[in-house]
Amino acid sequence: MRKVNPERFEARRRHVREAALACFKRKGFHQASMADICAEAAMSPGNVYRYYDSKEAIIAAICEEDRRQLTARLERLQHSRNLFDSMLEIAGEAMSASDPEKSKFGCEILAEAARNERIAEIVRRHNAAVVALCAAAIRQAQAQRQVDPALDAEAAAAVLVAAAEGLSARLALFPALDAPRSLAAFRLLLQRFLSPRLG
Amino acid sequence: MRKVNPERFEARRRHVREAALACFKRKGFHQASMADICAEAAMSPGNVYRYYDSKEAIIAAICEEDRRQLTARLERLQHSRNLFDSMLEIAGEAMSASDPEKSKFGCEILAEAARNERIAEIVRRHNAAVVALCAAAIRQAQAQRQVDPALDAEAAAAVLVAAAEGLSARLALFPALDAPRSLAAFRLLLQRFLSPRLG
Repeated sequence: MRKVNPERFEARRRHVREAALACFKRKGFHQASMADICAEAAMSPGNVYRYYDSKEAIIAAICEEDRRQLTARLERLQHSRNLFDSMLEIAGEAMSASDPEKSKFGCEILAEAARNERIAEIVRRHNAAVVALCAAAIRQAQAQRQVDPALDAEAAAAVLVAAAEGLSARLALFPALDAPRSLAAFRLLLQRFLSPRLG
Repeated sequence: MRKVNPERFEARRRHVREAALACFKRKGFHQASMADICAEAAMSPGNVYRYYDSKEAIIAAICEEDRRQLTARLERLQHSRNLFDSMLEIAGEAMSASDPEKSKFGCEILAEAARNERIAEIVRRHNAAVVALCAAAIRQAQAQRQVDPALDAEAAAAVLVAAAEGLSARLALFPALDAPRSLAAFRLLLQRFLSPRLG
């Protein structure tokens, strides 16, 4: 048996994920089939199934990649002197870097989750993991009194993640919204919500 | 020609909208057809088309009804002594009253808007109208120094509407989120974001 080159394996996985995203965009998640994905990737089904055996597995992998990116961003907090500014910076970065196509796809997957229990399960686990990462960052900043220690870190994280994703989706869908103005207001909201209270 | 009784006409329109929502929930907006809606409403196509001539017209009417509710809520501000508390109360009310099925349907319509320009146009106009209503309420409270006059009312409204809708959708989809705790955090966020600055 030939040995698998891990880099090449990962590159093929990415190729399949990108082909899947293109199909989901064109047809919607529900209507796109594994056959469409094979055609888009220009790969045989036998070959595609070596990487992912279902549309759900592809969605789970896309969520995982998102969490890896967020984890990498949050790891920078370990080396930061000013946790608060770094958190604002990371939030701003995550929002401006968020690809409009990905935000639109996020709406599609939430809509699918309302009807499809397997997708709902993946999306729920993903949301819980993202909220836990953000809550840990908030708690770390609270320990250093850079975020108001009286805040309920878990609930604050849940609300901020929902707000950030809700805003990204609307910026992607409503071109009339002024993105820099909205992002400035969001940054101010974070700052006022999280800052330690005076006095 | 028989005269139309306006109350009866409105009741029939509501009946058609409710039948449509049941179909959209079961099949998704894209897959549900006008024929499905007629069957669900137990009405002939000729009859249904007197009220709405397309799925898009039904969506537009559902959005309109939402705006009417929000307008009625915001009108209470005219008679309020404490604008700030009334705004918090209205926001809390709108969030807790939001039917999980309606929030899930909101995700479906955002997803459809990403692919269907006619739906996108309806959703965009709706969002702009809701943001304008909230911005007007914020400006009114700013004039009375109950909300920080330095805030950009339009951008603040856009961010808060996105946050509220993003949170409602997630509360509907993720039963593990603790709704009272999340709503308390959201209320605190509103309070800290909007309050006049001291000193």
